[in-house]
Amino acid sequence: MENFQYYTPTKVIFGKGSEKQVGKLVRQQGCGKVLVHYGSGSVVRCGLLNRICASLDREEIPYTTLGGVVPNPRLSLVYQGIDLCRREKIDFILAVGGGSVIDSAKAIGYGVKYDGDVWDFYSGKQQAEDSIPVGVVLTISAAGSEMSDSSVITNEDGWLKRGYSSDLGRARFAVMNPELTMTLPKYQTASGCVDIMMHTMERYFNRSENMELTDGISEHLLRTVMKNAKILMKEPDNYNARAEVMWAGSLSHNGLTGCGTGGGDWACHQLEHELGGMFDVAHGAGLAAVWGSWARYVLPEGAARFAQFAVNVMGVDPKESDEATGLKGIEAMEMFYRTLEMPVKISDMGILLTEEQMNELADKCSHFRKRTVGCVKRLTRDDVYQIYRNAR
Amino acid sequence: MENFQYYTPTKVIFGKGSEKQVGKLVRQQGCGKVLVHYGSGSVVRCGLLNRICASLDREEIPYTTLGGVVPNPRLSLVYQGIDLCRREKIDFILAVGGGSVIDSAKAIGYGVKYDGDVWDFYSGKQQAEDSIPVGVVLTISAAGSEMSDSSVITNEDGWLKRGYSSDLGRARFAVMNPELTMTLPKYQTASGCVDIMMHTMERYFNRSENMELTDGISEHLLRTVMKNAKILMKEPDNYNARAEVMWAGSLSHNGLTGCGTGGGDWACHQLEHELGGMFDVAHGAGLAAVWGSWARYVLPEGAARFAQFAVNVMGVDPKESDEATGLKGIEAMEMFYRTLEMPVKISDMGILLTEEQMNELADKCSHFRKRTVGCVKRLTRDDVYQIYRNAR
Repeated sequence: MENFQYYTPTKVIFGKGSEKQVGKLVRQQGCGKVLVHYGSGSVVRCGLLNRICASLDREEIPYTTLGGVVPNPRLSLVYQGIDLCRREKIDFILAVGGGSVIDSAKAIGYGVKYDGDVWDFYSGKQQAEDSIPVGVVLTISAAGSEMSDSSVITNEDGWLKRGYSSDLGRARFAVMNPELTMTLPKYQTASGCVDIMMHTMERYFNRSENMELTDGISEHLLRTVMKNAKILMKEPDNYNARAEVMWAGSLSHNGLTGCGTGGGDWACHQLEHELGGMFDVAHGAGLAAVWGSWARYVLPEGAARFAQFAVNVMGVDPKESDEATGLKGIEAMEMFYRTLEMPVKISDMGILLTEEQMNELADKCSHFRKRTVGCVKRLTRDDVYQIYRNAR
Repeated sequence: MENFQYYTPTKVIFGKGSEKQVGKLVRQQGCGKVLVHYGSGSVVRCGLLNRICASLDREEIPYTTLGGVVPNPRLSLVYQGIDLCRREKIDFILAVGGGSVIDSAKAIGYGVKYDGDVWDFYSGKQQAEDSIPVGVVLTISAAGSEMSDSSVITNEDGWLKRGYSSDLGRARFAVMNPELTMTLPKYQTASGCVDIMMHTMERYFNRSENMELTDGISEHLLRTVMKNAKILMKEPDNYNARAEVMWAGSLSHNGLTGCGTGGGDWACHQLEHELGGMFDVAHGAGLAAVWGSWARYVLPEGAARFAQFAVNVMGVDPKESDEATGLKGIEAMEMFYRTLEMPVKISDMGILLTEEQMNELADKCSHFRKRTVGCVKRLTRDDVYQIYRNAR
């Protein structure tokens, strides 16, 4: 078993009506002025933004608002947010939305406290030393950003999608009312469920020794998300199913499912980041589209682990070899993705990759042959190219 | 599913050699002077205390020491610690030990910042509003106090053992090296495993709706502890088994296994607190001694839950009724306790309760008929008496 650190300081307020406590939670942070950060019109239309603002008003907390975050959140809006925060002397950011809004809020938080270009953190040039704290009202179960240390931003200059992780980015609190996710379109619910599962699967597939306690938690989390995702395809307003998926989303990316397992693979996330930067696809859908190709490619290197996954998560009966069992597990997972109407090929998303595009993706993903990705098999630029090609 | 809060701010540093980081971790807290709090001579004899002090010296952190904490930690030493901290202007307490040392450290922390008697918190008269922060170097896997909000202190005046819970008592960091637990006597290892399991079982048995994700995590945690406890009876220096049990100890009492389940029962803890106050028994052993009696007494009220426990945790085949299945599960758990050489009756600990003592225990446990305990069945003073009697 590997040594590990586990740090999840985010206070979670989970359940029906929990957003009513937002004003009090912000008040407890002892801040002066708040930026309420959000995305599209849906939080406005459903009245949530009004309720949040009313809650802040009741506590007499001054605030200003900045909307307009889009999926695969953009660096240009982050710059705008940094300017706004400095101008208005903001010292707390309240993110009302899903992963894109939270990630954008984290980036603004880092940027306000940094003299240089906030992209320095995402391009790997610098480590953040300070940040404006962030609180969350979650409206989409998917990214797990409400409890994670990570944030992913897309730089329109070159359409590079890059992540940055720091404990400074852990939200102070996360208000999680599963009812707020009931109106999500089916496609977004499904894509979110894939995203949640992938945060655990990225950690689960590794070449380290493992921790029995963590493995069982991960396997149960995956089974729970699969079961409840299927329920939500038919009953989008099933509260308990929404709640199971929402809590799984947080536990899947707060570090719990990586304890003692040495970090995980994360190649699929790197593969998807380039797709998402180039084609603006939903993150979970992009992950589903490349996972099967990745899994088949690395299966020989991680056969025992794929076999354990197949049996314990997918309910496959053991076959004549770990590799054969593992392959059945991969097929079963693709079948599950199909039941959620998720892609299992890049072309399923309406994207027909050209030879030139595959080469561009492989170049970007390998940072022009300067890095490998993944650990089940360390993937070179040419491996990555082949995985994109097989995923077409 | 019930609404819940989840708050685990403790930074965990887990694994081999992790205690070397103590000086740096304390330094990060920005404190002035530290109290190093510990128990008996074992941390001195094994050289751990020296290594901790050397780590503080390397960071040039001033400190003073206070040893002498005993199992079922005493209020008198807490008073001594409070005086010492005030005199020496201590602003951080480093607990080096197991649950008793950590609980004593938390109590000292509350007391230093309070003008009245620190027992006010444990007797339910007051809520703490401030505290000196605590850090932990864990040497016993059992109480889970390294991540929990709780602390239990015994008042020698009347031998009352009482708990107090507050988020102020959550440790800032917990250094957890499983190697440090390898020299524990077999009885203490076994007693610790029971304690760990009971923190999840207390939450698991309830009358609320439940959360599938939490249930599965709890059931897997219990199976993992049982499996590794048996390994440790034969191989006390099995690192992976020590690590599984140690991490289970923290997850079992940091709140994770209670998410969405509405709080849990906790009657066995109340029953054991009176036993522990009167006879100074090891906490886990005391819990094992009363659990079977409690479980049989409340089984009719919680038959479905006991049946789920029997099947998913104890591997029992379903019988003709939930109650029959549940009973088999209770018997299987008692059989497991016996394999650890743990008591399943109070007399197994060499204590032959008199009629007078049973009445005194029942009076104290029910606060002289002023409260009920438990929720699977709300137990009155007379129920409690009967459970003690059946557990003789």
